Amino acid sequence: MMPDFNKVGLVGKSSDSRTAPLVATLVGLLQERGRQVFMEQEIDGFERPDSVGLLPLDELAHAVDLLIVIGGDGTLLATARVTADADTPLLGINLGRLGFLVDVSPDTAPEELGEVLDGAFEREPRAMLEAELIRDGVTIHRGIALNDVVLHVLSVVRIIEFDTAIDGMDVGRLRADGLVIATPTGSTAYALSAGGPILTPQLDAMVLVPVCPHSLNHRPLVVSGRSTIEIRLSSGSRSPAQVALDGQENVDFAPGDLLRIHRREQALTLIHPREHHFLRVLRTKLRWGEQP
Amino acid sequence: MMPDFNKVGLVGKSSDSRTAPLVATLVGLLQERGRQVFMEQEIDGFERPDSVGLLPLDELAHAVDLLIVIGGDGTLLATARVTADADTPLLGINLGRLGFLVDVSPDTAPEELGEVLDGAFEREPRAMLEAELIRDGVTIHRGIALNDVVLHVLSVVRIIEFDTAIDGMDVGRLRADGLVIATPTGSTAYALSAGGPILTPQLDAMVLVPVCPHSLNHRPLVVSGRSTIEIRLSSGSRSPAQVALDGQENVDFAPGDLLRIHRREQALTLIHPREHHFLRVLRTKLRWGEQP
Amino acid sequence: MMPDFNKVGLVGKSSDSRTAPLVATLVGLLQERGRQVFMEQEIDGFERPDSVGLLPLDELAHAVDLLIVIGGDGTLLATARVTADADTPLLGINLGRLGFLVDVSPDTAPEELGEVLDGAFEREPRAMLEAELIRDGVTIHRGIALNDVVLHVLSVVRIIEFDTAIDGMDVGRLRADGLVIATPTGSTAYALSAGGPILTPQLDAMVLVPVCPHSLNHRPLVVSGRSTIEIRLSSGSRSPAQVALDGQENVDFAPGDLLRIHRREQALTLIHPREHHFLRVLRTKLRWGEQP
Amino acid sequence: MMPDFNKVGLVGKSSDSRTAPLVATLVGLLQERGRQVFMEQEIDGFERPDSVGLLPLDELAHAVDLLIVIGGDGTLLATARVTADADTPLLGINLGRLGFLVDVSPDTAPEELGEVLDGAFEREPRAMLEAELIRDGVTIHRGIALNDVVLHVLSVVRIIEFDTAIDGMDVGRLRADGLVIATPTGSTAYALSAGGPILTPQLDAMVLVPVCPHSLNHRPLVVSGRSTIEIRLSSGSRSPAQVALDGQENVDFAPGDLLRIHRREQALTLIHPREHHFLRVLRTKLRWGEQP
Repeated sequence: MMPDFNKVGLVGKSSDSRTAPLVATLVGLLQERGRQVFMEQEIDGFERPDSVGLLPLDELAHAVDLLIVIGGDGTLLATARVTADADTPLLGINLGRLGFLVDVSPDTAPEELGEVLDGAFEREPRAMLEAELIRDGVTIHRGIALNDVVLHVLSVVRIIEFDTAIDGMDVGRLRADGLVIATPTGSTAYALSAGGPILTPQLDAMVLVPVCPHSLNHRPLVVSGRSTIEIRLSSGSRSPAQVALDGQENVDFAPGDLLRIHRREQALTLIHPREHHFLRVLRTKLRWGEQP
Repeated sequence: MMPDFNKVGLVGKSSDSRTAPLVATLVGLLQERGRQVFMEQEIDGFERPDSVGLLPLDELAHAVDLLIVIGGDGTLLATARVTADADTPLLGINLGRLGFLVDVSPDTAPEELGEVLDGAFEREPRAMLEAELIRDGVTIHRGIALNDVVLHVLSVVRIIEFDTAIDGMDVGRLRADGLVIATPTGSTAYALSAGGPILTPQLDAMVLVPVCPHSLNHRPLVVSGRSTIEIRLSSGSRSPAQVALDGQENVDFAPGDLLRIHRREQALTLIHPREHHFLRVLRTKLRWGEQP
Repeated sequence: MMPDFNKVGLVGKSSDSRTAPLVATLVGLLQERGRQVFMEQEIDGFERPDSVGLLPLDELAHAVDLLIVIGGDGTLLATARVTADADTPLLGINLGRLGFLVDVSPDTAPEELGEVLDGAFEREPRAMLEAELIRDGVTIHRGIALNDVVLHVLSVVRIIEFDTAIDGMDVGRLRADGLVIATPTGSTAYALSAGGPILTPQLDAMVLVPVCPHSLNHRPLVVSGRSTIEIRLSSGSRSPAQVALDGQENVDFAPGDLLRIHRREQALTLIHPREHHFLRVLRTKLRWGEQP
Repeated sequence: MMPDFNKVGLVGKSSDSRTAPLVATLVGLLQERGRQVFMEQEIDGFERPDSVGLLPLDELAHAVDLLIVIGGDGTLLATARVTADADTPLLGINLGRLGFLVDVSPDTAPEELGEVLDGAFEREPRAMLEAELIRDGVTIHRGIALNDVVLHVLSVVRIIEFDTAIDGMDVGRLRADGLVIATPTGSTAYALSAGGPILTPQLDAMVLVPVCPHSLNHRPLVVSGRSTIEIRLSSGSRSPAQVALDGQENVDFAPGDLLRIHRREQALTLIHPREHHFLRVLRTKLRWGEQP
């Protein structure tokens, strides 16, 4: 049987001093196991052997069977958004605090990677969103997000007003600082800060969370992952707004513009060593069950 | 083609003075359209003709193709729980304020019922829960719920402590007044009061909402509708607790007891006249989009 | 005895077509009652007689004994901030929806103003805040606010981190979109949207409400009105922030800057016709006690 | 100058095995410093010398100048409620987790008590509540509370409905599981679980927090400490309710009954070693400023 992951790409923050020794270890391990290794960029302090190819991130993603991302949840989010078209699975090693997405510790990374190469791993699909910004009937921007699409005022001294429809059904006008539309993955990110519930990763759902709504009646709304959400900035809105994808890409949103969001057809694939479980991460990170 | 709903049952609160004239109108309409009509009980002020049979509610549910429930959401909940085995569709006419479940107004009921008999209606499945209470390894109670299963302290001066597992994965120990496990249908009922999100009715999900948790880290958790939830009252818990099904049936829950909850295999079927839409009801009832 | 309010100033939005006829009525009434009337600007559609003087707002505030503000809560806020030094009482007539600050309806304004001129009114002091922005030990900005001082990220894709001290006692580091420091008056404005409690107007207190905090432990904190609040933007904060006074005046807040807030020594005076009561306004505006 | 605290009483849980050695140490220390010591009850494992008098708790409170309470916040609450009439200051030593009220650790207790006897301490007044339950115009119960007065349904399957007035002004009808009226001290107890804000201890205020309100418009309300709060259980309420004082004393509350609450004239005095500060305790207990 063909072994898994013959070609492996390494992506990591060059600026973190812990990256170089970890990369050296992983490159050694991968080559020893007969894998071809590629990198996106030179890493400070790591002498790249000629046997390790260098490719731009989008080419890299198409060239390999597995992308190992070294960093935090933010690094994985950024990588996922750039490499989504290639449909390459990602495995995250966290250099910072325990992340929801990067769940392998650097200490156990060699051992756990070894097991992954042996076939002891889980593939976890994570839904992504596609957002389309339409002005005067013309699509002026398309983007994707693993966590969330956030509509937000430009400045807190301004008010925005927008209408939301779900599958063509108007759910009312909202005056608020903004609105978060999050995947289950994103439910533990900004949506949580805004007061949203936690969704388990495999739920076929999205959650809409108003940010600082000016009325007290609003509650987070969990809708089907197959729904289409449309948001129109009221033409009477005094101010332009912004749309942020995963908090990393920012687009202007003008009065009259239409933002259309639906689940991306192709999910992201996360590779986890065995024994990973979202609820365990949740318990650890949020201290569920711990008393003050 | 066979017409729909040849045998129709009427269920309603006898104590409400508006019931009798409405029942008279509906019985006339149904018989005129060639339907056989049954009732569960005599209604004060309504002279039941011999052509209208009288049956106990559980037999009635098995005898008819459609149950018309006249009352509020509470009346429909109670009817649904008793008639669930019969798998008979329910149509609700609300005598009180607009309900989430009983959505036909008495004023338009004759007209809308006529359309339903003509075949202009929607069947909407609503997930129900099954709860099993296990003591010393023996199931001592089974029950079903359309809205929610609520674990709650008996008295507010007592504290309960319990452990929750989802599909066998421990999610931590909670000290709280209680825990709500709600269907999407129940997400707009007690779960909402306890701070939970709103779930659209067709979502294959359940929501766990802690009631007055003693730690600040807890957030509502939305899990798959196919999950099994197990709650064990900590043996160190100083107090017994109660388990309430739809706020209508109450069972004692002692330290060491295990409560197991999963989705009932068979959903309830609600019959709606055309043009019914949950989001419209939501907007109307909760005043989404209205400014104070 | 000297009658109250011999010199009266009128302040209003020229752009609202309802302003001119209302101003005409009020000017007539005031002059008939022997009051001297001043205005801040010409009002479209109102032919100002020579007997009505025209003065810039800050001079006007010093020249008169009462300022009548025609508009919404925002108009009154703006007027209060400009005229605070003059210590002139304000009476608000609301052209829009019922306001918390402008509580006289245009329909009853002539009658209620007549009663005020007769001496049938209440003086209600409302605490204001003073904010001082200090960079490298030097005060670079001072401002006042009737509602709130809001520290906020410039863009939702950025994170800010800041330390807060109350009367010199560190209360911890917060990562959030922002922080609202509100007077009781401001507790029903932006602080409420951010999840804060309502404070009755006469309470000698301020409330600190985190906006979308990245940790789940934070709760609004109500402190003495005599406290000094100091907020320092962490030098590791990746982004500058803004400080907004009453949502109307905006100042840049850079990493390392210190924001110091305390109650202004001199309160604003609101003039209410008799029978005004905050709790009644609250009940009306927020629909307390109303069921969905 | 007269030294402080010539007569000292010790109150503690006999059942906790750590109590006896701690009591032995403290009795030794107090007698060495020339203080007369009294106890409320025999402590298992502690051989009480004849020089240590034994008195019932209420007599003890009148006989001494200082009550040392060994236990948790609950022990101090119970002691405060029984000894309030005597107006004797309390010093709390916590045997459990850090408490908000019992803030001296057993490890440092001898040293800190020594300093207190030297005069190095702070007196902190804490407001208490008086509650009066009136049926058919007759007061049928009076009680006091340091934390809170909680009105609550007897069983979660029942609904209660009540009207609240503040200083005679109706603030609306509420359908809810209950209502918490808390002192600043109680704002970190049950009121916090119900969603209330934190009030600093010296604030002259009370907070009203609805428990699971059936409408979404309700927010915690912070009112003056000099206000009188009156709650009347709606006569249409389908169910009796309970009133709990500090979660320790329970009184039935029937439809039509009136509950009247105001601040007790005499505050409780807590004795703290120097360097105590509420905000530091808050930061430690609630992990303010800590990121997950």
